[in-house]
Amino acid sequence: VSVKVGVLGAGSWGTSLAVLLCRHGHDVRLWGHDPAHVERLEAARENRGDLPGVALPQGLRLTADLAEGVEGASLLVGAVPSAFTREVALRAGRLATPGTPWLSAAKGIERGTHERMTEVVAEVAPALVPAALSGPSFAQEVAEGQPTAVVVAAAHAEVARWLQAVVSGPTFRAYASVDVIGVELGGAFKNVVAIAAGLLGGLGLGHDPLAALVTRGLHEMTRVAVALGADPRTLAGLSGLGDLVLTCTGPLSRNRRLGEMIGAGRPLAESLAALGHVAEGVGTTERMVELGRRHGLPAPIAEAVAGVLRGATTPRAAIDALMTRSLKEEHE
Amino acid sequence: VSVKVGVLGAGSWGTSLAVLLCRHGHDVRLWGHDPAHVERLEAARENRGDLPGVALPQGLRLTADLAEGVEGASLLVGAVPSAFTREVALRAGRLATPGTPWLSAAKGIERGTHERMTEVVAEVAPALVPAALSGPSFAQEVAEGQPTAVVVAAAHAEVARWLQAVVSGPTFRAYASVDVIGVELGGAFKNVVAIAAGLLGGLGLGHDPLAALVTRGLHEMTRVAVALGADPRTLAGLSGLGDLVLTCTGPLSRNRRLGEMIGAGRPLAESLAALGHVAEGVGTTERMVELGRRHGLPAPIAEAVAGVLRGATTPRAAIDALMTRSLKEEHE
Repeated sequence: VSVKVGVLGAGSWGTSLAVLLCRHGHDVRLWGHDPAHVERLEAARENRGDLPGVALPQGLRLTADLAEGVEGASLLVGAVPSAFTREVALRAGRLATPGTPWLSAAKGIERGTHERMTEVVAEVAPALVPAALSGPSFAQEVAEGQPTAVVVAAAHAEVARWLQAVVSGPTFRAYASVDVIGVELGGAFKNVVAIAAGLLGGLGLGHDPLAALVTRGLHEMTRVAVALGADPRTLAGLSGLGDLVLTCTGPLSRNRRLGEMIGAGRPLAESLAALGHVAEGVGTTERMVELGRRHGLPAPIAEAVAGVLRGATTPRAAIDALMTRSLKEEHE
Repeated sequence: VSVKVGVLGAGSWGTSLAVLLCRHGHDVRLWGHDPAHVERLEAARENRGDLPGVALPQGLRLTADLAEGVEGASLLVGAVPSAFTREVALRAGRLATPGTPWLSAAKGIERGTHERMTEVVAEVAPALVPAALSGPSFAQEVAEGQPTAVVVAAAHAEVARWLQAVVSGPTFRAYASVDVIGVELGGAFKNVVAIAAGLLGGLGLGHDPLAALVTRGLHEMTRVAVALGADPRTLAGLSGLGDLVLTCTGPLSRNRRLGEMIGAGRPLAESLAALGHVAEGVGTTERMVELGRRHGLPAPIAEAVAGVLRGATTPRAAIDALMTRSLKEEHE
């Protein structure tokens, strides 16, 4: 099937997904909110800032006009940061054909409401069908055609299978799931563990402690996500474990890089400025702590990262505390 | 508690554990089967071949005489390769005080019998108490004092807790478990996935496919291990997931290095010779395939690695087949 797709958000992930869907034979428009950014992409036919070295396919249309990005599309891909999803989905919902799926590719939780992206979309654009895509997928590797496997989730299995068929291609396998909650929470929570992994690296610690952190981090993510309605198997899958492993061990992700700067002694504000990109994990940390507390669940890694981010403790003290908790059985 | 410990096997892992236990205040003897090797260690007070840069503590006694290593010990640590465990445990069982725990640190499955190391020990040395230690722990990082967390398992919880107390120290945390089967199978099976990870690397593939492989690899390890009696939570813990992540993403392990050489087109025999060390994963691959078949369980990663190792398929064809299996739901 070839369909009309509107990819909303022209950062690295939105650009990469637009390139991929174009290659899979779809009619794709990529919308960015900043006309100057879109003009630069059009002039270079490349997103040099976010996805260097990847030529934009001839068929890919760029626009800074949301109506042009949305109208007539059979599928919308939501690739704006979580802080802008509410506004963009609200406007897109008024322009889109009712029943169009909004496939969320953002990995965050909304500030204040603590809502997942599909919850935000359902609230402000009830005529759209919310769905989520997540999994171990670096924008750069997806665009390069590295074999990548992800999960697409929607409440109804037929929707998930339709999305699976639309987004899959020779180098990009999507598994279908109905666990929207698990897929979204895995993608969001893993950024918290990634910041902790960065702290470890910034402190000069090695691979043994990193592997232990990833393991304990997955337990913690799973515990909180299951309390919020996720299927634990989703957390053990590509969009949980897989994405966690990629983010904590692959080329430095934004969140891990942020943790590394802070671990090496750089203040948060300065580290965020040096990063120059949104690090979803900062907000997600606070929200994961809050969600854990609401359900009376321990979330020591999120609490440790939150303590470091608000300056209440040093990276060294926080990591030492995590590593020296009293000896107990592993699954307690 | 300070106890007398005999560490049997003076390779990198045995040497590292002996150094660690010495630092924790125990009276440790390290036995190696090759008198020339032991003499070199004694002369340098360092295991230059296997664990360079780590000084052997003054209190650590070295011996090539098994009786000296075993007699009077309250704990034996089994750190010889799986192929030699039967012979060494048989001899040690005759020399040891009845009731002494044999803490297996080897990560393999016996050729022919398909037995785990503690099964071999129970068979040939019924007076010893079999137990297992496993988890994400590079010998070099443990000796350097990097914070490391592992699992020690014994059939009886009191034995596991005693071992936990004996081996733990400021930089080395051991969790106690009664799931000996899960701890041993996780440590063994992860080497099969590590060879597959090496094949990916040798073929020039990136981090997205590696993260997918780790995720699918853990599912496959868990499926086969659970059929053999393991607790799935053990596979999701430090000795399963944790060790898998370390081996597939940390500094090149032997098994991953072997896979990388083969993936880059070097023949198996030549790769094994270049490795110069035992790669437990080669034998374990064949045994994991056989165990999966016995229980009618799919083990596509182990089958793919086995096909490459016996020359029935090329690394490229095997990896392509793994990456392009038909689209299904993730947990099927």
